[in-house]
Amino acid sequence: MKRITILGTGNVAQNLFEAFSSSDDINVVQVVGRDIKKMEFFKNRTSIVPYDEELALTDIYIIAVKDDAISEVSEKLRTKGLVVHTSGAAALSELKTHERHGVFYPLQTFTKSRLLDFSEVPICIEASNANDLKLLHRLGKAISSNVVAIASDKRRALHVSAVFLNNFTNYMYTIGEELCEENQLDFSLLKPLIKETADKLEFIDAFEAQTGPARRGDQQTLHKHLSQLKSKKHREIYTLLSNSIRASYQFKKDKA
Amino acid sequence: MKRITILGTGNVAQNLFEAFSSSDDINVVQVVGRDIKKMEFFKNRTSIVPYDEELALTDIYIIAVKDDAISEVSEKLRTKGLVVHTSGAAALSELKTHERHGVFYPLQTFTKSRLLDFSEVPICIEASNANDLKLLHRLGKAISSNVVAIASDKRRALHVSAVFLNNFTNYMYTIGEELCEENQLDFSLLKPLIKETADKLEFIDAFEAQTGPARRGDQQTLHKHLSQLKSKKHREIYTLLSNSIRASYQFKKDKA
Repeated sequence: MKRITILGTGNVAQNLFEAFSSSDDINVVQVVGRDIKKMEFFKNRTSIVPYDEELALTDIYIIAVKDDAISEVSEKLRTKGLVVHTSGAAALSELKTHERHGVFYPLQTFTKSRLLDFSEVPICIEASNANDLKLLHRLGKAISSNVVAIASDKRRALHVSAVFLNNFTNYMYTIGEELCEENQLDFSLLKPLIKETADKLEFIDAFEAQTGPARRGDQQTLHKHLSQLKSKKHREIYTLLSNSIRASYQFKKDKA
Repeated sequence: MKRITILGTGNVAQNLFEAFSSSDDINVVQVVGRDIKKMEFFKNRTSIVPYDEELALTDIYIIAVKDDAISEVSEKLRTKGLVVHTSGAAALSELKTHERHGVFYPLQTFTKSRLLDFSEVPICIEASNANDLKLLHRLGKAISSNVVAIASDKRRALHVSAVFLNNFTNYMYTIGEELCEENQLDFSLLKPLIKETADKLEFIDAFEAQTGPARRGDQQTLHKHLSQLKSKKHREIYTLLSNSIRASYQFKKDKA
């Protein structure tokens, strides 16, 4: 059994803690944090330690804090154990003051008060030496069936992709909410569509799955839609994305 | 039991036929079409009739063809029965040459060769008189728990929302595919993220769910991401959407 320290108390820390709790191979010995309210989550389940107190020795130290706090937390940490962060964007080298360092990045979106089923969350790992990569693989396998070694540059590319697939997709949902509000429509009418749009990726590539007036080059509907949109912001986004979709399929057609 | 004619043989026609087939209240007496390959789907399950032949009398005629073919199919149809189309964008008035006319719009995305569970697909109905609205309600209830009367102007607003929630969201997925290809990454690593991004709407508003550098106003990450994007098209979309997200949350903050 491996002994673990989690530094941080937010959504990622809570989700990792919960997932490790179900594993016989991992024991979260202590959680380090300063936010008393967030500490509540861990109370009576493990040892809770403030940042300035001495830590118990463990095999791995997981820094699960915001990107811009990683280096500060890392610098305060005195250990010869393996130190990893959980960020998609931060480089492996941010932890280089520790001889043994690595990355343990769960590629998922975490929401306050929502505990996820980790079993299919991809865990992207990276380490400064081969033995520690093995150790991180074991740590990942304790909670997920999907553990992959990914170097920093590829992890950064995944992170940018995630901005499109999560941040921007969610923003499309927000615009949907705004349009429903403007037109006194119940947004929940659109939820089955949102779900199916995501689910169909199991059966078909997104490029093939594309439908709608932009793909068809249906100018009449495009103009009708633009005239219906009251917000300049919505019109700008509608225009740029439609033109961009149109160009992709036109290009494909010209090549064929 | 109500007797039904479906005019059209595409994804919507096939999905409606399949859903009605499981209902004891609805009998699809005939399907009208010209595409012999698509007709195969209905073979030995109902009567298949070419467009120029005389039709059996039925209670309802469902025109499930592309938007720009609705009026042509409608004009050829000689009946005193209720005639409806299945389009989100076409007006009720496109069928006004028929005394009894209406709309039966399943708010969902349909994919070739994929049969959907209709039970939660919202069916938006509209009719030229109250009795026919009741009839359409009964038709909808035969396949879905979610049948709502929606007037043409609101249906059009739903349809524009669907462009953002389906067409543009799917385009974000396509960009994700493109970025993975560029960086030799396995797109399936990102599928759990896509799924959770959609699923979390059951628990939280999209506006509240927004995360990422644009919402935080994290200029450093925004610049880093832009420098990673090789395609001008991707950079333009990244910039417009990030600015737009930033403005939404800045505005909210300034108001608070």
